[in-house]
Amino acid sequence: MSNLQKPIIGITMGDPAGIGPEICAHLFEDTTLYENSNCFVVGDASCIQHAIDKITKSCLKVNPITCVKDAKFTPGCIDVYDLANVDMSKLRLGQVSKNAGNAAFEYVKKVIDLALSKEVDATVTAPINKEALNEAGHHFSGHTEIYAHYTNTKKYAMMLVHDKLRVIHVSTHVSLRQACDMVKKERVEQVISLADEVLRQMGINEPLIAVAGLNPHAGENGMFGKEELEEIQPAVESSNNTGMKVIGPIPPDTVFSKAAGGLYDVVIAMYHDQGHIPIKMAGFKYGNKNTSQISGINITLGLPIIRVSVDHGTAFDIAGKNIASPNSLRESVDYAIRLVKGKK
Amino acid sequence: MSNLQKPIIGITMGDPAGIGPEICAHLFEDTTLYENSNCFVVGDASCIQHAIDKITKSCLKVNPITCVKDAKFTPGCIDVYDLANVDMSKLRLGQVSKNAGNAAFEYVKKVIDLALSKEVDATVTAPINKEALNEAGHHFSGHTEIYAHYTNTKKYAMMLVHDKLRVIHVSTHVSLRQACDMVKKERVEQVISLADEVLRQMGINEPLIAVAGLNPHAGENGMFGKEELEEIQPAVESSNNTGMKVIGPIPPDTVFSKAAGGLYDVVIAMYHDQGHIPIKMAGFKYGNKNTSQISGINITLGLPIIRVSVDHGTAFDIAGKNIASPNSLRESVDYAIRLVKGKK
Repeated sequence: MSNLQKPIIGITMGDPAGIGPEICAHLFEDTTLYENSNCFVVGDASCIQHAIDKITKSCLKVNPITCVKDAKFTPGCIDVYDLANVDMSKLRLGQVSKNAGNAAFEYVKKVIDLALSKEVDATVTAPINKEALNEAGHHFSGHTEIYAHYTNTKKYAMMLVHDKLRVIHVSTHVSLRQACDMVKKERVEQVISLADEVLRQMGINEPLIAVAGLNPHAGENGMFGKEELEEIQPAVESSNNTGMKVIGPIPPDTVFSKAAGGLYDVVIAMYHDQGHIPIKMAGFKYGNKNTSQISGINITLGLPIIRVSVDHGTAFDIAGKNIASPNSLRESVDYAIRLVKGKK
Repeated sequence: MSNLQKPIIGITMGDPAGIGPEICAHLFEDTTLYENSNCFVVGDASCIQHAIDKITKSCLKVNPITCVKDAKFTPGCIDVYDLANVDMSKLRLGQVSKNAGNAAFEYVKKVIDLALSKEVDATVTAPINKEALNEAGHHFSGHTEIYAHYTNTKKYAMMLVHDKLRVIHVSTHVSLRQACDMVKKERVEQVISLADEVLRQMGINEPLIAVAGLNPHAGENGMFGKEELEEIQPAVESSNNTGMKVIGPIPPDTVFSKAAGGLYDVVIAMYHDQGHIPIKMAGFKYGNKNTSQISGINITLGLPIIRVSVDHGTAFDIAGKNIASPNSLRESVDYAIRLVKGKK
């Protein structure tokens, strides 16, 4: 791919006290990164330098930049859009802090600006810490809400991906009781439609969309809850009538294993854990006391810009130990490339 | 093991129109079955004969019995406690019917009687169909409720098992809204205590019990729901005070992957799908249109008798096709043996 054809991707560094800086460093060690994309980090050059010198011992030069056109996009070099908002002498790895929370927030805001002004084709985010974000006075429940706010987006949803399993949520960061209240025909239709759109953008023609029920056994014909009959089934029917391929409501306890086996292109999950539990069962492998493998990504749908994110947290417990894997970050970049191509 | 030391296990045949008869036939093909147990089927001899002749083509003789002491427990032979309540000329494999539903119910009732009168040491159940059960006028939502009713048990819970992952539910067949209402300190304590008891019975000393939250991120300190602070956390504390090893509430989306990796001996799930989704992600592997592998079992806790069950349904779509696997049934027998030994 010629350099001009390659999508430019801005990757936020995440919370400076978490595993973000070191997984960014590892990501750029792999020179195949530049084969299909031009990536750079939006973060703090001193943090990345510290990660390279003290944690990963990567053979990488840091190129601090303050505008995208100064990026070199050269193997062996990591371009860092440098917001210079971290005092390394005060940063404590693995600890929640207001300053780190604020720095992480600024990276996200900057990458959104760069995407809105079309200086980058897609954005990828490393993990932030919600407590630190809150301490810094930014009262968002996560990246998704920050993106929605600064792009003025009202209808959005999150898609989690691990291998063949893709999941989109009707609601996320609300109590389970509130989540039950949010299962409404209009919202379910909206999410089905966002799913259909993104799957087509990814190059899947006629995607098959499975809709999970809310209640055990999808309510068993109204025996255990009425939401399937009153809200979900009508949304499935009306969506089919507009030409999409939608089935459901399917019992929640089997729909995800079936999707993981490739039977559906995506599952519409009714609430946060209904979708997150199977994704993490598929992508997170634990052994002994440490996470041995984490993979999976998430994509925010409905935004005017592309955003793909790792599907893990700041992992403060292992920050600085050089055991965090950059796999999910690399998968995020690869998905972002796929989405940029589909959009063109 | 001498014949007298071997536990006697009664295995119900399940709905005659489902995969029950053929998986029973396959189970008895494996002569290792008799090494550590004396198993027989509670069902219909003509159904089992049909499964052997027409479906599995097993080299097995059927020995119809009407009392346990007539069982031969001999490799190459399948003892069937014959309730003779199926007319094979009218049975349609793969179809819900009142007669099949009633027959299946009678097997369950009989095996409970045999266990209560100590003619069997443990019971194992093949799948029944709830619709058929209802059509036959038996208004139970599943096996568990039938067992509870006929053993006059008020406090019970279901434990699902797949490899290292064990899950026990605070509630099962109720709507998700009702399930939220049922997350009460007393009930959570009760389930923790049932879990501790059965794990010790299985030979695990000082079992480590993880308790899941109800809400996303276990409520994130009350931001997304109060049940963790008001009900679950107090139950965890009081249980620890009685000497059990209990931790939680843990965010629902990671606790199950951690348990699957062996970090906890059991997870207390707050509702049906919270526990069933990860168990089925772990144990059900789908490929193309057919289930390629199903494993996992479940155990009813709190009963005066031992009951272990397969963790799959009647699978009407593949009944009679000789593709259903007896693995889960064999795992159930092996777990039943383990529980009998622990009880002695």
